[in-house]
Formats: sequence, structure tokens, C-alpha cells
Amino acid sequence: MPGNSRAAGTHHSRPSSSEEPPDLEDQELLLAAAYVSDAQYNRNVPFETSPQAIRLYHFYNHWTMRAATYFFIWVNLALALFEEPAVFPLPFLVTSIAEVLCLTAFFGRLVHFAKVTPQKVFWKDTKNICVMVTIVLTLIDLVIYGSLEAVNIRGVRWSRALRPVFLINFPESRQIRRTFRSIRNTLPDILYVFLLFLFSMMIFSLMALKLFGDRDLRTVEGSPYFTNILDIAFELYVLVTTANSPDVMMPAYELNWWYSLYFITYIIINTYIFMSVFLAVIYNNYRKHLKNEIHTLAYLKHHKMTEAFNILKVKVGTEFVVKEARWRRLVKVVAPDVSSSHLELLLRISDEGQKGHVDKVNFLRLADLLNIRVVAINIKKHPLETWMPRVYQSSTSLLVQKMVQHRIFVWVYDVIILINAIFIALDEKDSLISYAEWLFLSLYIIEILLKLYTYEPSAYFGRKQFWNWFDTLIIIAALLATVANTTIQARKYNSQQVLDIVLILRILRLLRVIVSIQRFRVIVTTLINIGPTMLTFGGLVLVVYYAFAIIGMEVFHGKIHFLDPGSGSPDALVCGNPALKDSAFAQGRYCKNNFNDLASSLILLTELTVVNQWHILADGFALVTHQAAKLYFIGFHVVVVILIVNIFIAFILEAFFVAYSLEKSEVETAIEKKIQELGVGVQEEEVQDGGLIDNMDAKDSGFSADEGDNKKKDLKGLYFRIASKKYKTVDTLLQQMFESEIAPEGKDPSLKEILSFSPKKVNFDNSA
Amino acid sequence: MPGNSRAAGTHHSRPSSSEEPPDLEDQELLLAAAYVSDAQYNRNVPFETSPQAIRLYHFYNHWTMRAATYFFIWVNLALALFEEPAVFPLPFLVTSIAEVLCLTAFFGRLVHFAKVTPQKVFWKDTKNICVMVTIVLTLIDLVIYGSLEAVNIRGVRWSRALRPVFLINFPESRQIRRTFRSIRNTLPDILYVFLLFLFSMMIFSLMALKLFGDRDLRTVEGSPYFTNILDIAFELYVLVTTANSPDVMMPAYELNWWYSLYFITYIIINTYIFMSVFLAVIYNNYRKHLKNEIHTLAYLKHHKMTEAFNILKVKVGTEFVVKEARWRRLVKVVAPDVSSSHLELLLRISDEGQKGHVDKVNFLRLADLLNIRVVAINIKKHPLETWMPRVYQSSTSLLVQKMVQHRIFVWVYDVIILINAIFIALDEKDSLISYAEWLFLSLYIIEILLKLYTYEPSAYFGRKQFWNWFDTLIIIAALLATVANTTIQARKYNSQQVLDIVLILRILRLLRVIVSIQRFRVIVTTLINIGPTMLTFGGLVLVVYYAFAIIGMEVFHGKIHFLDPGSGSPDALVCGNPALKDSAFAQGRYCKNNFNDLASSLILLTELTVVNQWHILADGFALVTHQAAKLYFIGFHVVVVILIVNIFIAFILEAFFVAYSLEKSEVETAIEKKIQELGVGVQEEEVQDGGLIDNMDAKDSGFSADEGDNKKKDLKGLYFRIASKKYKTVDTLLQQMFESEIAPEGKDPSLKEILSFSPKKVNFDNSA
Repeated sequence: MPGNSRAAGTHHSRPSSSEEPPDLEDQELLLAAAYVSDAQYNRNVPFETSPQAIRLYHFYNHWTMRAATYFFIWVNLALALFEEPAVFPLPFLVTSIAEVLCLTAFFGRLVHFAKVTPQKVFWKDTKNICVMVTIVLTLIDLVIYGSLEAVNIRGVRWSRALRPVFLINFPESRQIRRTFRSIRNTLPDILYVFLLFLFSMMIFSLMALKLFGDRDLRTVEGSPYFTNILDIAFELYVLVTTANSPDVMMPAYELNWWYSLYFITYIIINTYIFMSVFLAVIYNNYRKHLKNEIHTLAYLKHHKMTEAFNILKVKVGTEFVVKEARWRRLVKVVAPDVSSSHLELLLRISDEGQKGHVDKVNFLRLADLLNIRVVAINIKKHPLETWMPRVYQSSTSLLVQKMVQHRIFVWVYDVIILINAIFIALDEKDSLISYAEWLFLSLYIIEILLKLYTYEPSAYFGRKQFWNWFDTLIIIAALLATVANTTIQARKYNSQQVLDIVLILRILRLLRVIVSIQRFRVIVTTLINIGPTMLTFGGLVLVVYYAFAIIGMEVFHGKIHFLDPGSGSPDALVCGNPALKDSAFAQGRYCKNNFNDLASSLILLTELTVVNQWHILADGFALVTHQAAKLYFIGFHVVVVILIVNIFIAFILEAFFVAYSLEKSEVETAIEKKIQELGVGVQEEEVQDGGLIDNMDAKDSGFSADEGDNKKKDLKGLYFRIASKKYKTVDTLLQQMFESEIAPEGKDPSLKEILSFSPKKVNFDNSA
Repeated sequence: MPGNSRAAGTHHSRPSSSEEPPDLEDQELLLAAAYVSDAQYNRNVPFETSPQAIRLYHFYNHWTMRAATYFFIWVNLALALFEEPAVFPLPFLVTSIAEVLCLTAFFGRLVHFAKVTPQKVFWKDTKNICVMVTIVLTLIDLVIYGSLEAVNIRGVRWSRALRPVFLINFPESRQIRRTFRSIRNTLPDILYVFLLFLFSMMIFSLMALKLFGDRDLRTVEGSPYFTNILDIAFELYVLVTTANSPDVMMPAYELNWWYSLYFITYIIINTYIFMSVFLAVIYNNYRKHLKNEIHTLAYLKHHKMTEAFNILKVKVGTEFVVKEARWRRLVKVVAPDVSSSHLELLLRISDEGQKGHVDKVNFLRLADLLNIRVVAINIKKHPLETWMPRVYQSSTSLLVQKMVQHRIFVWVYDVIILINAIFIALDEKDSLISYAEWLFLSLYIIEILLKLYTYEPSAYFGRKQFWNWFDTLIIIAALLATVANTTIQARKYNSQQVLDIVLILRILRLLRVIVSIQRFRVIVTTLINIGPTMLTFGGLVLVVYYAFAIIGMEVFHGKIHFLDPGSGSPDALVCGNPALKDSAFAQGRYCKNNFNDLASSLILLTELTVVNQWHILADGFALVTHQAAKLYFIGFHVVVVILIVNIFIAFILEAFFVAYSLEKSEVETAIEKKIQELGVGVQEEEVQDGGLIDNMDAKDSGFSADEGDNKKKDLKGLYFRIASKKYKTVDTLLQQMFESEIAPEGKDPSLKEILSFSPKKVNFDNSA
């Protein structure tokens, strides 16, 4: 076939059928590649189409540039560890130089971006304005603080709370920005529910004042009970978080059991119903806004692919197509590290009739195809079978292999692990038990050796054999840990950290149980799959925590000190501040929960997120400063617990539904069908059962394109499969989540077509 | 038209066109009516078709019989209030006689059911077996307990924990049963997640033992910290519920801030991720199972309507139809209290072409049509306009009316209410403020009078004008309360309960703000709409609470006593049990949280549901009995908080999504369209703006059927509208929830048709 004969064409071979002037083509190719790459990673940055701008744009998107940006963002955020109040103090000069360096890097990135994008677009984009304003503000703050420092006046480094702005506003953190946008869009709907909630709290506060205010009741601590309307409102807000239940009810309940109904009604209405309504409203809006954005993304992707097609198309017969050679060059530019067998597979999928060119419909799919991770697999014999077939095939050897493959083998080892757990729980000072350690370890090593004897080793340690790797690494870690432990004990070496890590590694080997129980593996795999997407929330939480931590440090640092209680000093009992005398804060020995450095602040904010006892922490800080300090804690609760945790739950719910259903019913994508059609497919189960290797790179040349019809014979030993169902990015998962709902709404038929293509592995890296 | 001329036919008129033997028809009609009624209320009880059985079946389904059953169920459950340990003690003889009476009633109901249903079906139904076994067990228990009582030995009334069986197993509580079934079906999926969760807890417990066990750390209370593996496991389970955060972390955190990472990891994995996964799995399964059941219900309904059609059909031309007269008689039997104008409307919808008969498709809709509540509205002039048109239409009067209808009028009153709230918060002993009360009340009364002057009174207090009634009733209650308060103060009368109620009523008047703010009204309406369906969960919670309360009372009653702390007795400080000395339970003054009677037990269980401090309660009861008592509390947490509260949240989420979207986009049902087509429709907004009445019953005869074509003229003044979007039952809401998802799955086209009919008001009372 004509197409196949040209298949071996290298990068610069120019097929005779191309009509364009040779000089122009390279630039055009680069432009088309930029479009395709943007479509593949869902970047939506308008860029200038001059040759120089396109080259700059390619450079702008290069991974080194992005990594450098992230590096400086993290350095900038980490500065809080070294600035007063510091975990690891450094002179102000050092941190300020580091900060100026980071700011320069950010400014450089911005200038680079300004050269790539049209001026109008650049100046209209609030992101860029935000970054510039923040850079200027930070510089001003640095100068002021530095001058004050020079004359020994301690200023406030307020601009530090703005640092997360850089994390949010660079184009690389679209996910976080999108979540923020989604929160902003949800606010109007939330607002009315929140107002109604406050109104309900007000009514209940008034009732409490009237019912209990004049009774002269006392709390357990002996303070007056429900006498001041502001105190009541705070107590009732705390009750919504359940943190002071049932204590807040007890004085009234002791008076008359009837009054418990007041509190139960309050809890049902405000804790259960209102908090569920918050979750419902947030969930509902979050989904709605995300769906719209994903919809837009799909539309833009289609648009960009069409642009790329229009650049490369030539007319063949009645329709416009992209010639095979040009297509190959494009893919090589967009994905330089794609292997030639993978490229060939993509071509066969795109050029179904093997006509030597790719038509529009198939070309538009390219961005999705490139995002599907395809793994090539080579079937090999066990090396022992090759080296000494007679021994390996002997009846004893076969019996061993059968035994290892049997279920009972797995069960026996599960029982061994459980017995191991009991031994760990027992006191290890007994030397018998300490020897048993070695017995268990040798049993585990024997297991791995037996498995390697039964299954082909390079298949067993294939690139995607997550669980085998996991299993083996745990055993090796446990082995090292036990050896280290013995060495330490022998040498009386006593580093606490090392001992702790050794201990944890030895216990983690129990995780092997997960590997052997199929249902556990499914649940853990699901969780791991939605893991990367959960990191977006990590970013979101980081941004909010960081800002709150900086504010907290400026306001509360030095107010509460942790003094070693062993010192016997009376100050240690009141956290170094007499205002805390007899407070629940001091009695609970919460002194270490303070804002004296970044690490402590973040741990304290985590405790506040968990909610329990937050009112005692808030009370403590209010006592050492002012009652208004409670507003800081209430604000944190509203932002983190009511907004962000609910979004987290909404997201986990949605993600779990999708991941869970994918685990159960396999949706075959177009690419999988094609692999099956070509007869080069392999089931994932076969791979796991051994006998197959995963070495696309090793056998790269095994799939040359000239076989024609007898390709199946030539392909013997080399098979393809779709890589495991892992969502690399949030966008992939979101696309999954809303795919079925978006499809029927498609505005134009070709958009629908793209969507109905069901891209299982589409990798959206960026959005609007 | 021929159909219309027969319209006035009363119950026993026999149209000349009917071909059946007259005697048979009554029975047939009764059978068909039974089918239609079952379809209307989604009852799925197979019944004998003998004439006697059908009459018994109609009687079985009569509301009095069902009400009686519920009455006896409640009496039976309420007996726990009067039995030892009792809130209101009664002799054992009295309660046992009452219990035997209830059991007799249950048995009678069962016998009645056995006569109606085929014997085979009856004996295969686990519900019936359950009820019978429970009756026998209860009788045995009563006899044993009575005999022991007679010889003064205190036995255990264990059968009381079985009482909720009656509530669950009578056909009337299908909703609760369905939720239980859904929980049962979810269990296998939950089980593996739960096991993995326990496994993760075990790993963390072992780590904690190894990391902290040998450090000789002490908790705040001075007890050893993390030295016993069982204690660690309990503490870590409590940490999942967040109830002991951050206290459980503090000793380790004080030692080294590094150890906080252990606890933060634990909380992220076990509290956030696992608990979200529980919610996700429960939500997912709950939806799936409910969808299946609703699907089956829809199919069965269709089947029953087809049966009814087959009984009544006659052949006209080429198709089978039901004659109009027979259709009328059927409706009269199925819904005896339907007004004749409503009947006429239904006929016009069913017999679109006015051909004098109803075809199959329209007949099958009947069950849904009957469930749609239609309200007839009569447009009237304001009575003042009728009596003294000149005064009412004078410019001053019109100005007043315009003023009242203006937005500013509403705003002014919102401000007045807010000022009122401030006055309530202030001390009312000041006589000036106490006079202000009267001022506010008169302002409110003037507002209502002005509104009645502007809007037509019978429209303003129409049956469906919820918010107007709400507003007026609140004002009247506040008026009565203020009068009562003055009287009480004057007479020095001092009943605490009365005073409290008066206080609450006076504060509740602030709720009027909700009426005037549109967005608040929407939220509250949504909540009220899903209210009845939330009652199912009330039932479910009651069943679980009751069983746990009875067990708790048998195990823990009398162990902890509340003694008045004012008495100064040292026993009061340890809740009458020396084992509680120095415990957090006694220090928290939790003595009143005990199992000494049903009311206390239920309040305690509510506190456990709220979770906070549950470990202190569990510890207290473990101290006075045995450490194993903690299992009771852990069991309660797993069942109520992990299972039931999650189902509640899942349900609220789903319900809120549906209700919320309904509030925003109005789906016009077939019946609404028909009302519009007939020109007798009215927009809900018009009704609220006044000038219309809602008096279907008053003007029943206004819509006689012989008008023919000029019906519009005769209908002048009488309009219909669909009653407000209120879900009477859980099924209605569920149907709503899953409608869009079920429709495409329909097995046969006619089922699809029924479903695509979009029955907005379908009233499913029962299920499988």
C-alpha cells in the first residue's frame, strides 16, 4: 500500500505529494504542533502566530520552565520557615535576598508570557495584574520592614499572607484557580442559606437568653450559664460544630429534662439539616460550574484541533486530509519521546483504511489519542525454562509452580502475616520473639523467590505491576529495618528518629495483606487512582492554611509558650501567660498549640479543621488577646470546614462514584477496540497472571509497518494494552465525571462526535 | 354528545350499552377498583379475587383499620415509659394487660390479612412469620417475667427490644422496611471497606504501641499513655470520630512535634478518606437499590392498571375501551370523596376527544391522575368592593392598597421586626421596654388588617396559602402570649412551663422575617417539602434508638444516679457510684446522662449520635460495669453514625437536588397542560397576589357537564391549579429523583409511556 511504503520516512523526508514551499512548512508545523499540544494539555493561552513567538511559546511550555516556576513558588512559600517567628531562624538579609530572587523569577516568567501572548490579552488578564501587584506590594513591604528593622522597630510583614497569590495565579495551577472560581460562583447561593442559618441561630440565642438567663445557672467550670447574648451566640455556634455537646446542655438538663428538647431541636435544625443543606448547595453548584467549564474546555479543544488541521490539510479527491508523512512529523514534534511502534499504532488507528492520509474526524482525535497511555507487552518464556527446560518442566518443579499459583498458598501467607502482627504486638524484649522476626522475614523472602520461580521475572516486575513492586519493596524495607535494628541494638546506637522509622517500616510490612485480598486491592486502587486529583485540594488547603497561618503568626505569636512541664515552673502550667490561669486551655495542656512558628501554626490549623475542642483553643487565644480573636477562629471554621471540607466531600463522592463504576464495568474506548481489531490486544488479567512482559522500549523495532496483511504473524510476541485506569490529572477525572451529562448538550455535531468518542485517558492539564 | 348526556348518572344507573350480566358487574367493579386503588397507593399485596375476599380487602385497606394498627403499635412502643425502669411507673399487671391487648390487635390484623391473601403467599412472607414469632416470644417473656415477679425475682424483659419489629413488619411501614433492605444490600460492600478500615486502625495501633508505649508518657489526667493495645485501639477509634482530638495527640506532640505527623496522617486516612468512602459507598448503593425498587414499582403499577382495564373493557370499533359511565363509577368507588367538578376535569383529561369512552393509554394514567391534587379556585371581588364600592374605590383607599402592595411596606416591617429582636434581647424588666411590646404587637396587627383590606380575605386565607396562615398564626400566638404574660405577672402566677412556652411564642414571631424575604421562603419551602420524607428516617431512627434504649436500660439502669448537687452529698459528685471517682464522666457532671428511664436513654442516645464526648460517656458506663460495655457504644456509633446518618445525608443531598431544581424550573405535567388547554388554569402567582379564592368544595356544583362547547363561558369564575409542589410521601420524591434515570430502561413500550408521562404528583404509598 502507498501509505505503508512511506512509513519509514525520517524527520526531514519531504513526500513528493506536498505542494507547500519548503521554508514555510517548518513554521507551519510548529504552529500546528503548538495547537495540538495545547489541545492535548488543555492549555488555553492565546499566543501570537509569528514564528518567533511560536518558538518562545514552545519554550514557555517546556517542562524545565514550568518546573523552575514551581521551584521558586515553593521556595517563596517556604521562606516563612526561616523568617521570624522561625522554625530554623535565618537573618532577615538572607530571607529577603531569597524573596527578591523569587520575585525576579516570577517577573521573568511574566515577561516571557507577555512576549508570547498578544498585548491586549495580557493586560486584560486579572491573573497577570494580580501577580504584578503582589510583586510590587511585596517589594514595598520588604523595604518598609527592612528600614524599620535597621532602626530596630519591629514591623509587620503583612505581604507574606499574599504569597499564595503566586501559587494561584500562575497558569500552571488552573485546578486550584478553578476550585476558587467555583467557590466564588457558589457564594451567592450559600449566602442566603448562611443568612437563614444565622437568623435561626439568633432566634435560638434569644430563646436561650430568655429561658436560661435569669436562672442563675452555672457551667461545670463555675462560670455563669447563658447570661450574655454574645456568649450564647458563640456557644450555639460551637454547638453547630458539635464541639461542646453535651456539656453546653448539662446545666439546663439538670434543671429539667424538658430543656434537653431545646438543644435537640437546635442540633437537628442547625447541625444536621443546615449543615446538610450547605453540603447540598455546595455540591450542586460545584458540579454545575465544573460541568460548564469542562464543556467549554471540550469546545476549545475541538477548535484548536480544527485550526491545526486547517494548517496542515491538503485536498485529496473531494475531501481535505493530512498526508501521512506530515502527520508523522507533527506527532514527532508534539510528542518527541513517542516510540515508533506506538506511533505506528496511532497511525493505524487514525488512518483506518491505510490510505496514506488521515481525514478530519480522525485528525481531531489526535489530542485524545496522545493522552492514552499505551503499553506494549512482549510474551517471553521463563528464563529458567530457556536455560534448563528439563529441570523447569520436571514434575517436582511443576508441582511447586502449581502450589504457588494455588489460592491456599495466598491464604497460608495471610495467616503468617496475622501471626506476625500478634508477635509485633507482644513485647519484643523476649529473645524468642525477637528471633521469630527473622523466621517471618525468611518466610516472606522464600515467598518472593517462589513467585519469581513460577512467574517470568521481568513480567513480575513489569512497569505497571504496582502490587508486585509494592509487595517486594515492603519486604526489602522490613529486611533492612530488621538488620538496622539488630545493628543498633548491638552498638547501643540511639538515634530516636532512626529507631522510629525502623519501627514503622517493620510494621508496614503488614500491608502485604492488602495485596493478597482482591477486594482490598480494588478499594486501595480506587483510592490511589483518585489520589492525584485529591492533591488539587491539597493545593487549595495549602493556600488557605498558609494565609491563615501567616495572619495567626502576626497576631498571636509569643502570646502562648510551651514550657517543659517537667521543669516544675508555675508558668509552665499556664503556658507562660497568667491570663490562662484556670482556663480549659491550660488545663488541657494545650500550650504547644500556638502560633509561634509555621509548623506549629499549621498543626494548630489542622486541629481546628478536625473541629473538636476548637472552642477551647479559640477561648485560650481570646484570653491572651481579646474576645474579638474568636472571629479569627470562626472565620477559619466557615472557610475551611463549611466551604472547603464540603467541597472535598463532594469531590470524593463524585470521584468515587466514577472510579467505583469503572472498576466494575469496563468501558471499551475506540483505541482499545482498535487494538483488539488489530489482534495485538491483551487482557489485563493475562498480564497479571504472568508470562507477559511489559517492555515497549526494549523491543521498539519489533513492529515495523511493512507487514501488510500478515501483520499478525509478524507481531507474534508483541502485544498492546491500555495502561491501568489511573487519572493523571483532575481534568481527566472531571471529564469522566461529566462525560455522560455533557454529551447530549453539544452545540455542534462535531463537538458531540469528539465527546462521544469517550476518551478514557484524556489528559487535560489546564483549563481556562 | 352521548358521553355528556350520561354524565349525571348516579352510582347505580346502568348504561344501556353495557353487555355484562348486572350481578357480576358490581363485583367486577370492586375488583377493578381494588386494582386501581393498589396502583394509586403502590400497594403490592396479592389478594384473592373471590367477591368476599375483595370486600375484606377493601376493608383491610380502609383508613380506620390502618389507623387502629398504628395506634396499637404506638401504644405498644410507649409501654416502655410505664414499665420498670419507668418515667411514669404503672403496676406490671396494667402494662402486661395493655401489651396483651396490643398483641391481640396485631394478631387480628394478621388473621385479617391471611383471609385476604392466598395461603401460599401468606406463609412464604417473612414479614408475617416475623410478626407471629415476635408475638409468641413476647407472650413467653411476659409469662416468665410474670412468674418470676410473683416469687419476687427480677427477670429481664428482653422481648421489649423486639417491639420495633411490629413497626417494621406491618405492610404500612414499607418505607422503613425499604431503607432497612437497602442497608442490608449495602452491607457486603460496606463490609470490605470496614474491614480495611479496621486493618488500617490495627496497623496504626501497633505503630502507636511501638512508638509511644515505652516512653512512660502520661495523659493530662495522669494515666499511662498508649501502653495497652486495646486501649490504643479504642482511643484511635475515638479519634476517627474526632471526639478526643487534639487531647490524644498532646503528650506525644509535647515530646516532639514530629509525632503530630503520625496523628495527622491517621486523621487524613481514617477520618477524612475512610469516612468519605463510607458515605460514598452507602450513597451509591442506596441510590442503586432504590432505583431498582422504584423501577419495579412502576412496572407493577402498570401491570395492575392493565388488569383493571381488562376487567372493564368493551370493544368499540377496532379497539378496547372503557365506557364513560363505568369509568365514572370506578372513580367514585376508588375515590369516594372526589368532587364532581374534579371528576369532570379528570374525565376531560382522560377522554380527550369527548368520545364517551376512555382508551387504554388514558385509562392507565388514572392512578397517577388521582394522585395529583387539583385545587379549584373561584375568582371573587373584595367583599368591601361589593358592599361599598365607592369608598373602596376612592383615591385614599386605592392609595392605601397601593402602599400595602409596595415593596417598601415589606421592608419597613422587616426593620420593625429587627428592632423588636433588639428589644427582646434587652432586659424586659424595664417598663418602657415592656410597653414597647404592645407597640410592636399593634403594629403587626395593623399590618394584617391592612393586608386583609387590600387582598380578598378568603383568598388571603386560602387553603394553600401556607405563608399567610403562618404569618397570622404567629401574630395571634404572640398576642395571646403577651396577654398571658401580663396576666401572669399581675397575678404572680408562676408555672414555669407556661412561662417558657409564652416566652418561646413571643420570640417565634421573629420568624415573620422569613415570610417577607423571597429567598428565605424558597429555602424553607424546600425544606418543608422534603420534611415528610425525612419522617421515614425518623421512623428508622426510632426503631434503632428504641432497641438500643431497651438494651441499655436492661444493662445499665441504676448504675448511675443523678443526685441534686445542691444537696452537698459526696455521692452527688460521683453520680452515686464510687467507681466514677475522678473520672471525666463525673467531672463533666454527666450524671444525668444515664439509662434510668426511656426518656433519659433516648436523650443519651441523641448525645451519642452527635458524637462529641461519647468516649467519656462510654468510659463512665464501662467504669461502673465492665470494659466490654464500650462495645455497646461502639456498636451504636457504627450503626447510627456510620450507617444511618450517612443514609440521612445521602437522602438529604438527593432530595435537595431534586427539590432545588424543581423550585427553579417548572416542569409542566400533562394535567397542567390540559388545564391550560381547557382555559381553566391559573398561575400560582396570580393566586398569591390576591383576588382569587380556593373553594372547590364550596362551589362544587359550578361545573356541571352538559355545557358542551360553551363551557368556557359557564366556567367563568372557576379555575383550577395544581396544588403546591409538596411531596406527600417518600415514594413521590423517590420517583422524582430517579425518574430521568429510569425512563430509558423501560422494558416494554407501555411502561416507558407511563414513565414518560412524568407524574409530578404520583403518590406511592407502598412498595414491594
